[in-house]
Amino acid sequence: MTTSETGSQTERIRATVNAYLAAVASGRATEVAALYAEDATLEDPVGSEPRIGRAAITEFYKGIEATENTTELLTLRISGANAAFHFRVVTKAGEQTYEIDPIDVMTFDQDGRITSMRAFWAPTDMVQR
Amino acid sequence: MTTSETGSQTERIRATVNAYLAAVASGRATEVAALYAEDATLEDPVGSEPRIGRAAITEFYKGIEATENTTELLTLRISGANAAFHFRVVTKAGEQTYEIDPIDVMTFDQDGRITSMRAFWAPTDMVQR
Repeated sequence: MTTSETGSQTERIRATVNAYLAAVASGRATEVAALYAEDATLEDPVGSEPRIGRAAITEFYKGIEATENTTELLTLRISGANAAFHFRVVTKAGEQTYEIDPIDVMTFDQDGRITSMRAFWAPTDMVQR
Repeated sequence: MTTSETGSQTERIRATVNAYLAAVASGRATEVAALYAEDATLEDPVGSEPRIGRAAITEFYKGIEATENTTELLTLRISGANAAFHFRVVTKAGEQTYEIDPIDVMTFDQDGRITSMRAFWAPTDMVQR
């Protein structure tokens, strides 16, 4: 792979990660799931049963439709076709506001679609604001 | 697994991650490698050929013996027997000082030894101080 191909792959991945955080904030599950490849896997939190395929992934994100979420990218590291990123999600559910700053790991296909997502966090990382 | 078993596993992992960063700063490759299980794997950066087994892992860390390194844990997320953490390494090599803040992902055995390590970073993430 040439340096320029590596560069454009990096830029595609960066664009997908930013689109992912924007889609989570949008509150539309189908918009988030559209960023995934058809046969992608999702393991959130890491150690739980993976969800496989876009239908199961859409179902997983239904939770964001009942809440108001803002997201912020804190750190993004890209290694080849792989990314790890630290980000913040602030969730308003009724009168309550919660914050969690997970680290997610993703792999991507040539088109920059997410082929796998694994989210590292524990319930104790969630704080009430 | 009971909540208390989960808690002690989390504490073992947290202790290993802190010991790992202290060992990297110590500059002794064998001290770092001793935190790994005998048949552990190391992929640094992610996408490169994994090193397998403690001898190959010791060899990998020889680089820290010729430089002066300080380390700092920025964020640690633990999910079951898995951890992702964002950290800083400042390296002095002769007159030059470099800084890199990778995100590493590790898995652990029951005793808290590292069974795999994958480091997410790209050469462009390294900055000269």
